Formats: sequence, structure tokens, C-alpha cells
Amino acid sequence: MEGAPKRKKLEPFFNPKSACVAGASKSGWKLGNVVIRNIQNFGYPGKIFPIHPEGGEVMGYKAYPSPLQIEEHPDLAIAVIPRESVLEFARECGEAKIKNLVVSAAGFSDCGQEGSRLEAELTKTARRFGIRLLGPNSVGTINTHGHFASSLLTLDTLPAGNVSIIAQTGLFSAGYERMFASLNSPKISKVASLGNKADIDEIAMLEYLEDDETTSVIGIYTEGLKDGRKFLEIAKRLAKKKPIVLLKGGRSEKGAASALGHTGSLAGSFNVLSGALKQAGVIQANSIDELISSLKALSLCPAARGSGVGVVSVTGAGCVLSADRLSESGLFLPGLTHDTEQRIKRLIPPYFTVSNPADIWAAVEKGGIGEAFKVYLEAFASQDNIHILIAITTYVSESRFDAENVFGHLRSSYPHKPLIACVLGGNPEEIQKWASSLETIGIPAYCSIEGAAWAAKSLSLAGNVMFKGIDCRADWILQAQSRC
Amino acid sequence: MEGAPKRKKLEPFFNPKSACVAGASKSGWKLGNVVIRNIQNFGYPGKIFPIHPEGGEVMGYKAYPSPLQIEEHPDLAIAVIPRESVLEFARECGEAKIKNLVVSAAGFSDCGQEGSRLEAELTKTARRFGIRLLGPNSVGTINTHGHFASSLLTLDTLPAGNVSIIAQTGLFSAGYERMFASLNSPKISKVASLGNKADIDEIAMLEYLEDDETTSVIGIYTEGLKDGRKFLEIAKRLAKKKPIVLLKGGRSEKGAASALGHTGSLAGSFNVLSGALKQAGVIQANSIDELISSLKALSLCPAARGSGVGVVSVTGAGCVLSADRLSESGLFLPGLTHDTEQRIKRLIPPYFTVSNPADIWAAVEKGGIGEAFKVYLEAFASQDNIHILIAITTYVSESRFDAENVFGHLRSSYPHKPLIACVLGGNPEEIQKWASSLETIGIPAYCSIEGAAWAAKSLSLAGNVMFKGIDCRADWILQAQSRC
Repeated sequence: MEGAPKRKKLEPFFNPKSACVAGASKSGWKLGNVVIRNIQNFGYPGKIFPIHPEGGEVMGYKAYPSPLQIEEHPDLAIAVIPRESVLEFARECGEAKIKNLVVSAAGFSDCGQEGSRLEAELTKTARRFGIRLLGPNSVGTINTHGHFASSLLTLDTLPAGNVSIIAQTGLFSAGYERMFASLNSPKISKVASLGNKADIDEIAMLEYLEDDETTSVIGIYTEGLKDGRKFLEIAKRLAKKKPIVLLKGGRSEKGAASALGHTGSLAGSFNVLSGALKQAGVIQANSIDELISSLKALSLCPAARGSGVGVVSVTGAGCVLSADRLSESGLFLPGLTHDTEQRIKRLIPPYFTVSNPADIWAAVEKGGIGEAFKVYLEAFASQDNIHILIAITTYVSESRFDAENVFGHLRSSYPHKPLIACVLGGNPEEIQKWASSLETIGIPAYCSIEGAAWAAKSLSLAGNVMFKGIDCRADWILQAQSRC
Repeated sequence: MEGAPKRKKLEPFFNPKSACVAGASKSGWKLGNVVIRNIQNFGYPGKIFPIHPEGGEVMGYKAYPSPLQIEEHPDLAIAVIPRESVLEFARECGEAKIKNLVVSAAGFSDCGQEGSRLEAELTKTARRFGIRLLGPNSVGTINTHGHFASSLLTLDTLPAGNVSIIAQTGLFSAGYERMFASLNSPKISKVASLGNKADIDEIAMLEYLEDDETTSVIGIYTEGLKDGRKFLEIAKRLAKKKPIVLLKGGRSEKGAASALGHTGSLAGSFNVLSGALKQAGVIQANSIDELISSLKALSLCPAARGSGVGVVSVTGAGCVLSADRLSESGLFLPGLTHDTEQRIKRLIPPYFTVSNPADIWAAVEKGGIGEAFKVYLEAFASQDNIHILIAITTYVSESRFDAENVFGHLRSSYPHKPLIACVLGGNPEEIQKWASSLETIGIPAYCSIEGAAWAAKSLSLAGNVMFKGIDCRADWILQAQSRC
């Protein structure tokens, strides 16, 4: 119960009992109206109080000239108003005993000295009234389980999942939303856009997510950590229970300059940070694609109990390129035992050898693709030093088979060995459906060799942190890890 | 006319006047039947002669027990038969005066000493009869313009384009086919799967493609170059006219071992090769995704006249991450001139600064997204030291606009400055349509920042080779490069 009070602190940003929204128009269509529509679309069960200088009605709700006139104390205020009006509004929130505030306006520490001065004043006001502040320059929050979103760009509803994202960009609260709604995306629990982090930062969010029951994997996009030491301390503790994947923006000089203008962040030396993150057990992505690929794998699979990878592929180039990528990632491709070889040999012409990675085309020609995958994968999975399996196929008529059945059987026979699927070729619609059917049974699917290899690396890194010094065969770990 | 004889040498592998196919079944469905059906589906206008021990009829064509019985000399023979029968068939082809042969069977130099011995014998036989041999272990060829395919896996028809691929894998002749048929794929001219390269290798194919009028960009996947020196010589000459993008499989020790079992290739030291390729002006991809991204950009855009990149983005993270990636790639983000700044300043609140990369969200809020992109992109394009433009947007309602119009206008106003589009988010169907609409007007589109940055790098590398020491303003270059 130790974590509960911590979590409650930021709860209203995701689960407010009631919320007031400043910046909606009566007749036109401003960003404040988008916020209200999003809240409605998400099926929010609480009360909404629009703030409008003229009072009256906004989108069917009674509007109030100021938070001070609301008959109760809303849990949360969302300010979608110009920079010039933010300070005054924060003061009114304080006087109206509103303790949580999202500020969307940019033009603060992202905008030179004058902006930084304004931000300092805003922070001071918030502190004086005991207000927790998200932003400024925040695009808001999403909570799929709580049916709430304070995002200021149009959202559809999203399927609920176990992945939460903390980001110094609005992309994850808005831009990526339709991708998150697509079939083979990682499924989202919560998103918070941190903006300039005048108050709430990655640390506060990690503390909140630590005990959040619907979050089992955490993604972070940051442009600069204000209190690196404290961040590393909590990340180290948390990564043992919930894998953390982090993408750092502003690694280069030009990127760092851009970060200063984006969220007012001082990027700092990336090499120093990177080393410290590694020690803390944080998985570091090099791109948004890698971040998302990792989150998907970690949300669907158990972390791996080692770094031995077995690759089974219908295409020889899949073997060669995955071996390259896995080796470059520091993963291992264990040689096969006599027993593993024998289990496979009956399937292939005598002059073919069996190795890891395994090109199974000869077996496909002899016994059909389903049987080939089944025999190879089961033989590989039964070998102790193979901890992760990658199955690579292509999307032509000849290589279609009941993957859900063949892969699903393996997945349930070896619940502690993650199985990653990779399909090459195919058009986007087909691939999406194929991937989605596997992902519903706990098999993350990728359309590139590099995506699959990166997923393997993420699962291995996560396992390295979670199982260090622990007897991996213990049943309770299996249970704790069965998040699929 | 110097190149014409060279090209003709391999012409029958792509444009045979008539072809015989061994390995089709009368009643069942073998890979030989797939080859014949592919040839039919592609709308091949020439004659087909199935070879079947019993003669009679195969798929509606008169079948012959051996090539020797055919009344004419087919241009090409395609052997989709087991390893054991290949030598005898090659001999028969030789006696029947067939000068070009595709062999699909594996089990040759990809399969240890005995296989290598067999391959040597096959090569000897081919040489004795003056037969050009593609394979063994080849998945065949595709020629979209000539309506011919010898691929042994099921293909749909593909839209014809200007990209040709030479690969030591069947992926491009088969596995990727549905991707190549999808809306936003690079459009294919020719594909050749080289297999073990007993005779025809990358060098022979480059010599063929050098004068092929429907090829303006060349992609290569190789697991080991047999005659590196000669390859580099022709690649260096060719890269000045037609950009070459190469992906090397077997860079790592494990990958090299895998390559030996895949195509019998000796991978050699990657570092040495990589340095030599760079000097020859060959663009080196690190993954199939990068290979395909490069080919798309190079097939649609003029090569860039420098490495200065201007980035215009609706999302701040797009600025930060593209700056990181472009800097890491050795590209430049030039600072803005006073004139460029002034052209933009009217669009944004006075306290915002204008920089490169440019976060245009403030301008979007003020003037709408179409106007913001227009003003920024035109100002950037007018600056001499910006040679490539990247426009980054997201797929939410608020960021939708008539990209075809805004980007298209810029593309035609500055025909020598490639414009690369990047859209983040959105579901696969939406993205595909969006990308496709831009690609038809010569603007390659990507769904990741890294994809767009890699495209920029490819265009810059290609330009560096093509325009070295040439007056870039010359009109004839513009014309030579207007491949869109």
C-alpha cells in the first residue's frame, strides 16, 4: 500500500471526477471544443464545466465565466488558451481550489528569456496554490481504461491495453492516435504529454505509474532529464517490475538546439546519460519505430530468460540478415545440439545441414510450410540455451499457413520463451490482419527483420534486469510475467 | 550503341521470344506449373514449351519429353526440377541449342563439398555448350515492361517502373511481390534472383542494366562478390548515370556462416568492401527497409545537388529527431538567411523564432496548415544552400490538408530540389493512400522520420557521385535527372 498515495497525486490528470475546460468557443470551433469532444467520445462519466467569458452554454454544457463561479471544486482544469491569459487563469484555478492544471499554450521556456520568465511566474503561482501543473506546452493526457482524454487534437477512441507512454511531445497524445487504434499497434493504457515540464516531469509520472495496475510497460520520449540522478533511481527500481523503454531526442548538437526551442530542454551529454540508463536497466530505443516495436513485444511477451535466439526462416536472406542484426545487437545464436538436429533431419533431404538460423525452404518443399515451422520451432524451443524464437516468413501464396495454430501451439507449450513473428512482403492491409491475429495470442509480429531482431533484444534486455540473480524456473515469475 | 551488344547477352532472361519450362505437372501442381501460370498472368506474348517426360499436354500447351524434340530453339529454358536431374537437362538444352538457362534447385555450392562438385560440373556443361546460366538456387526473373516472369512462386502482375533489383535471394522475385504491387512501393522494372551465381553474377547483370532504358535506379542484395575489383570498376562507371544501392548480407561472423549455407557465398571482410563501395559511389543500405526506401526516393526524385537539408515539421519532436538523424548521417541543416526568416515571420507570433528544422505549429494555429507549409517550404527552397526539403506532418484531423497541391506546387517550382514527405501516425491503409497520391507527382513519402532522413541521405549521396565537378545549374542535367 506504500505506493498508493503517490499514485493518487496525479490521478486527476487521468481519472478526474470532474473537469473544467477553458478555451472552447460557443459558435466557432476552437481547440477547447476539441478537448470537450474528445472527453465525450471517450465516454467520460464525470462532469464537464466549460469556462467562457460570457457564461451561457457551450456544447450543451452550462458555461462559467471563471472557475470561481463553479458550484463545486473540479478535480482538473484544462487550459487551452493563449499564453497571455494563462497566468490569470492559473490564479483563478488556485482561488477556486482546483489542484490540477493542464496548460497547452506554448511560448514559455520553449521561447527564449521572456518565455522562461513567464514560465517561472506560472510555476510560482501553481506552487503558491498547491496546484500540480502539466505543461505548459502539453498536448494533454489519455486514459483508455478511465475513458478520459485531455488531448487537444481530435482523437478516436482507442482499444485499452497495458502500455503507458510519458512523452515530451504531443505525438503520442495526438499524432499517433490513429496508429494506436490500428490492429497491430501496442495497446495503450495511459499517455501524458509533458511539454516544458515546469512541474510534472518523468519522475512524477514514473512514480504514478509504478503502482498503476493497468500499466505493465512504460515508454518514454524525453528531450532532457532535469534531475537525472533521481530519475535513474526510480527507473532502476521500476525496471525490475515494469520494463522501461526510452528514446532520447536531442542527441546531436543540432537536435539539442531544436529541443531547446521545442520544450525548453537542455539536452546534456547523451553519452553520459546513455551509460547511466544502461546501468539502471532502461532499454534505449534509437527511433520512434524502435520505441513502439519494443513496447509491443514487452506488452505481449514474457521477458526473456537469456540472450540465446533461435531463428527459423522460409527465406535464406532472412537467416543471413537476422544473424547480422542479432550479432550486432549482442545477442547469441546458439549452435544446435545433436538432439535438436536429429528431430529435424527426418524432414529434409540428407545433403542439407541444420543450423541456427535455419533456412527451412527444403523442409517446406518436402512437408509443407506448417509442418516445417512446427518441427523446427519445437526442436529449437526444447533446447535449453535458446531463450527467444524468431519465425520469419513471407507473404506469397506458397508460404501461407495457419500461423495462428502452429505458432500458438508453441507459444502455449513454452510459455516462458517469447516467440516473435516476422512477415516480409505483403501489402499493408494483409500484414496488419496477419500480425493482429498473432498478437491476440501473445506473439508480437513485425514486417521487417530488424523490427523482429530489435524486439528480441528488448525482451532480452528486460529479462536481464528482471531475472538477475533470480531462479528463472520459479513458477511465480512465470505468473508475474504472463501479461498476454 | 556501344552498350547494345552487352545488353542483348542477357536479354532472353527478361524478354525471351520463346521459353521452355521443365518441372510442371500434368495433373498435380508443381513449382513448374506456378512458373507457367506466372508467365501467363504477366501477359507474355511469346511461346511456351512445357517439358514433360510423357509428352502430351500441360496447362493447355503441347508438352515435349525433352528440349531436343521442340521444333524450334527456345530462347530460354527454366528448370524447376530436382538437383539430381539438372545436369542431364542442361546437357539436353545444350544439344537443343538453348543458350540461356535458369536453374532453381538448391543443394549445390550452398550444400557443402558434394554440392560444390556438382555445381562445378553444371558450370562446365553450360560453358561447353555456350549456355548462360542463372543460378542454381535462383528463384527467377521478373520484367514488368516485357510482361515476363520466370519466378517460381505465385506472382500477381506488378505496375511497371524504373527500379531494377539484382539479388542473391528470392525475396525480390517472390516474397516481396505483393509489397511491390502495393500503392506506395517503388515501381519495378526488372528483378533477377542470382542464387549461387555459378555463371551470371552482379557484374553481368550490371552490364546488362547499364543500357536498359527502363532502368534508372539499381538495387543489389549480395552475400559476397566473387570478383570485387571488376564489380567496383563497373559500379563506379554506372553510378554516375544510374544510382546503385547495395545491401550486403553476411556482415557478421554468424551472418557469413549463414550466407555460406544460403548461396555458397564467401562473405569476406565487410569493412574492406564497405570502404571500396563508398569510393565507387555505391550507396550502402543497412537493411531491406533502407534499400527499399532509397530505391523509392531515387526512382522519383532528382539526385540532390548538395547535402543541405531544410526540415519543416508540424511536430517539435519531428524537428528534434530529424536533426539527430540527419546530423548522424553527415547531412547539414543550414542556418536561415535574414531573407528566409523575413518571409516566414509574418506568419507567426513575434516571440517565436524561425530556425531549421522549423516547428510550424504556431503558424498552423495562426494561418492553417496548408498556408504554413507553403510559406515555410517556399522560403526554405529559395535559399541556395538548402538542397533537399523534408516536410513532416501527422495524420490527425487538424493536420490534414491538400498536401498534393501544396507539396506539388513546390515540387514543380523547384524541380532540382527533392522534396521528401513524412507522415507520422495514421493507420496503414490511410498512410498508403496518402503516400501514393504524393508519389505519383514525384514526392517520395515515408511513415517514419528515419525513413525520410535516409531518403535524404540517399539523394545526397547519389548527387555527390553524379554531379561531382559538374556545373549543377546546367539545364541538361535537370533534364537527364527528371525521372519523375
